[in-house]
Amino acid sequence: MKLIRFGTAGNEKPGVQLEDGARIDVSDFGQDYNETFFGGDGLERLEKWLKINQSSCPKISEDARLGVPLTRPSKIVCVGLNYAQHAAEAGMKVPTEPVLFFKSTTALCGPMDVVIIPKNSKKTDWEVELAIVIGKKASYVEEANAFDHIAGYVLHNDVSERAFQIEKEGQWCKGKGCDTFAPVGPFIATKDEIKNPNDLHLWLKLNGETVQDSSTNDFIFNVQEVVSYISQYMTLLPGDIISTGTPFGVGLGFNPPKYLKPGDVMELGIEGLGASKQTAVAYSK
Amino acid sequence: MKLIRFGTAGNEKPGVQLEDGARIDVSDFGQDYNETFFGGDGLERLEKWLKINQSSCPKISEDARLGVPLTRPSKIVCVGLNYAQHAAEAGMKVPTEPVLFFKSTTALCGPMDVVIIPKNSKKTDWEVELAIVIGKKASYVEEANAFDHIAGYVLHNDVSERAFQIEKEGQWCKGKGCDTFAPVGPFIATKDEIKNPNDLHLWLKLNGETVQDSSTNDFIFNVQEVVSYISQYMTLLPGDIISTGTPFGVGLGFNPPKYLKPGDVMELGIEGLGASKQTAVAYSK
Repeated sequence: MKLIRFGTAGNEKPGVQLEDGARIDVSDFGQDYNETFFGGDGLERLEKWLKINQSSCPKISEDARLGVPLTRPSKIVCVGLNYAQHAAEAGMKVPTEPVLFFKSTTALCGPMDVVIIPKNSKKTDWEVELAIVIGKKASYVEEANAFDHIAGYVLHNDVSERAFQIEKEGQWCKGKGCDTFAPVGPFIATKDEIKNPNDLHLWLKLNGETVQDSSTNDFIFNVQEVVSYISQYMTLLPGDIISTGTPFGVGLGFNPPKYLKPGDVMELGIEGLGASKQTAVAYSK
Repeated sequence: MKLIRFGTAGNEKPGVQLEDGARIDVSDFGQDYNETFFGGDGLERLEKWLKINQSSCPKISEDARLGVPLTRPSKIVCVGLNYAQHAAEAGMKVPTEPVLFFKSTTALCGPMDVVIIPKNSKKTDWEVELAIVIGKKASYVEEANAFDHIAGYVLHNDVSERAFQIEKEGQWCKGKGCDTFAPVGPFIATKDEIKNPNDLHLWLKLNGETVQDSSTNDFIFNVQEVVSYISQYMTLLPGDIISTGTPFGVGLGFNPPKYLKPGDVMELGIEGLGASKQTAVAYSK
């Protein structure tokens, strides 16, 4: 199943993208894609409900805005430097255990929304990433059981301001949590749709030119290791997002580095998870 | 006004602590202390509602558990090293701009709850802190207007696992977001109750012995600077928590360092914000 949310920002409704690409409004199911939905067998109930009601669900217009395909996760936990060649381009060493950081949930935006270059930013950068959506509360989970705690997967652009992240004093969060720095979607694919999340092609084009082109089989820490590892340090709630790191090819790694300017277009995708497209714009009040 | 929430964990109801210390159940007001409440004039409406309804509100039993006095903040943003003498004891330099990190909201717990020493932890430590509760959406806020965006203040113990925070690879979040690492309360004091948040006595006792004893007038960055600064990097939502850093006297700074053992009791308080008390316990499934 492919979960979407659609409508104007802040007023999204839940929908489903069908096998033929058509999108239907499932508001009548009566529940949005939140912690209660994922944690309370929402996926199974929605699937059953669709068997009976799918044909009467309204079709969504093709030009409807897509929103974040889930609502109000308690957190976005990210893994840094999870591809060796990216660690090298960032001038950092390959980690021997997952490097974690949080992204503010206020950074979330829809997959085709604009990315706002913050005030005083000169180094806003892209990062295509495979993100995991948690389906079941996870605390001290063994790797062998990690998949039991996953609801599905989604495409994420972990937009990052390198000066805020690295040159400012302290932790990375200043450069990771700016508004619109987490375009997520187009859809959450439930885990049954993704045979092996540790072997997916992922890519990002800047103004039509491929800059990231890799596979999650280059992960240093794979999906099950990451879920298990994070759950040793905090409880993951249903609907929480884990982003698994970006491969080689970010702007920081260019010589000279290359950062987003207003009008630049990022198109990105992951095998089985569709594609998204964001245009960078300057901040304006 | 002093806002509390009471009841078993996960089933808390909103209440108010009166001037005489009595606590009343304000469930009939019809709204919990969440983003919508703080962002939608909830404080003003509650105050008016109380004028009419206070006498008919049920009294809360004195042995009722106190919960976190707000629900589901989008984030907890913390300021690190915001007192010079604490930066020194932590072996870190005094920052020239606020150092920020996030604490997982799943770390929140009530002010008298136990603090769970995580599995494999040997260095769980205490940190008494003044926390700010945001009352109005804040993005690129000037210092001069920062107080307009504050709903009130609350006592916070920023419990920290030093090995997870500092010795593990990467960012501080592994040692800051463990479950029960954010006891908050007993109550949120609305800002009208706190004449000057930048001049409050704060203290923490470990097993009856004073280990932290300072004043927020030792802040490197004061409340208005911190709110303004964070809002340059992300939007703060109503109900979000900002924790302003801890003064000298954490376990890490002892010679030799001193960390929590099961049975240890932390009592902490801030002038005008009451006191809290947590007993450390070992993790058990």
